Amino acid sequence: MISGTTALVGHLGFPTHTFTSPLILNPWFDAAGIDAAVVPMGSRPADYPAFFRGLFTVTNLRGALVTMPHKVTTMDLVDEVTAVAAVAGATNAVVRLEDGSLLGGQFDGTGFVQGLVGKGFDPPGRSALVVGAGGVGSAIAASLAAAGVAALELFDPDAAASSALAGRLAQHFPEVSVTTGSRDPQGFDLVVNATPLGMHPDDPLPVDVDRVDPGCHVGDVVLSTDRTPLLVAAQERGCTVQPGSDMLFEMLPAIVDFFGLGSVTAAQLRGVARLRG
Amino acid sequence: MISGTTALVGHLGFPTHTFTSPLILNPWFDAAGIDAAVVPMGSRPADYPAFFRGLFTVTNLRGALVTMPHKVTTMDLVDEVTAVAAVAGATNAVVRLEDGSLLGGQFDGTGFVQGLVGKGFDPPGRSALVVGAGGVGSAIAASLAAAGVAALELFDPDAAASSALAGRLAQHFPEVSVTTGSRDPQGFDLVVNATPLGMHPDDPLPVDVDRVDPGCHVGDVVLSTDRTPLLVAAQERGCTVQPGSDMLFEMLPAIVDFFGLGSVTAAQLRGVARLRG
Repeated sequence: MISGTTALVGHLGFPTHTFTSPLILNPWFDAAGIDAAVVPMGSRPADYPAFFRGLFTVTNLRGALVTMPHKVTTMDLVDEVTAVAAVAGATNAVVRLEDGSLLGGQFDGTGFVQGLVGKGFDPPGRSALVVGAGGVGSAIAASLAAAGVAALELFDPDAAASSALAGRLAQHFPEVSVTTGSRDPQGFDLVVNATPLGMHPDDPLPVDVDRVDPGCHVGDVVLSTDRTPLLVAAQERGCTVQPGSDMLFEMLPAIVDFFGLGSVTAAQLRGVARLRG
Repeated sequence: MISGTTALVGHLGFPTHTFTSPLILNPWFDAAGIDAAVVPMGSRPADYPAFFRGLFTVTNLRGALVTMPHKVTTMDLVDEVTAVAAVAGATNAVVRLEDGSLLGGQFDGTGFVQGLVGKGFDPPGRSALVVGAGGVGSAIAASLAAAGVAALELFDPDAAASSALAGRLAQHFPEVSVTTGSRDPQGFDLVVNATPLGMHPDDPLPVDVDRVDPGCHVGDVVLSTDRTPLLVAAQERGCTVQPGSDMLFEMLPAIVDFFGLGSVTAAQLRGVARLRG
């Protein structure tokens, strides 16, 4: 129960009515006896910078979850960002450190990578093709780099987007070999669709599945269904697959840790979540 | 449980760890199925005005409870105040109206007056002596005027304080006869101690109890004990008495109504409160 000693985590976005993290994290804090609460706070873009600065003067605020439409704007409102956030160009969690400074992190890709690990895919030394260099693709590429992949191929219909992402990766993760411009999946250990293709049944496939290695792991970020045409075709080919719905639960343990609010697993969160519908 | 549809009520003050209203109102909202939550937010004086303005841009915020040290400052941060708040010179609750404007109310005295009514004292037409013209004395005098007392005598060792309060009462409640400068309790239907006298056992009495009419109702705002020397002496004289502890629970139903969050009684709140210690 919220009291004057509760560590607050603002959940900043607009609109708020579809927010799911409070329905997962608050039951967990309650069950685990952790005196913390995620509080949705709707903020329109024009109001956001001033609201954000004022909010972080609140003495019992631990940090904030940041969601649409504020993930990019928030980069300029914090004192420092993690390498993953810098590569992604966006932050979805801000913590106030002990010296009062604000650190922005980015965990959208962490959930994806944790999902991989949970399915037995070990990133270090592996090669990956990421199709889509927008917000989620950038976040996944950054998290894959942070997790130790050896080589990344980035493809986006907007070549400037994949080139810019490659440049940010080279700056923050110089040990990763990054190339751009091809979406041929042949030879990769991991293929990720980070585009909206697959939300609609008649969407074209993001890659040519006939050229995916049967031993490849294929992941999708589309949330509307666990059986996108890409994942169905990859599975028929013998690949292991990973749906987009894994990302949310897998991301939250890393965020709880980032806020210094204890240790939890995705399975524990699934056990207490009170999602609707 | 807090979700993205929950109507937030900020609870603004510093420090926050002693806040009691969340421990009373949140269990009530929970028990009654009202999708609202009181969220303590600690704000230091230097940070407060900017934080307050930003907070009220939050789309799912219904209003705020305001406590020390912000009750006076908040007067300048809202668009309008109630007559009771104007007389008290302080606001302890702010609601955002449908047109987006902010209305400040003052319910510190409401609890006291509701306590009187609950004990069978009917304010309209009666006379009252209020000793102490500081924050709580001003709030009680304002609420007594709003409740319809015919005559108020105000006394404060600082004569300018009681004169200024009399002036504000004359402006907002011209129908009430207001005098100042005496603390002789003789002839009053109600005598209120709104000073800290009585917190310590060796404090002098705020009024000469030998001159209190036996049919008089005597109230105290001291919270540390229900048996202040004043109330003990008044009771021995045959007076009915009212301790300061009645005020909190009696105030909150009026605030819940002010926020448009339903109807509740003090007894219902007492039944669900999870106060500690």
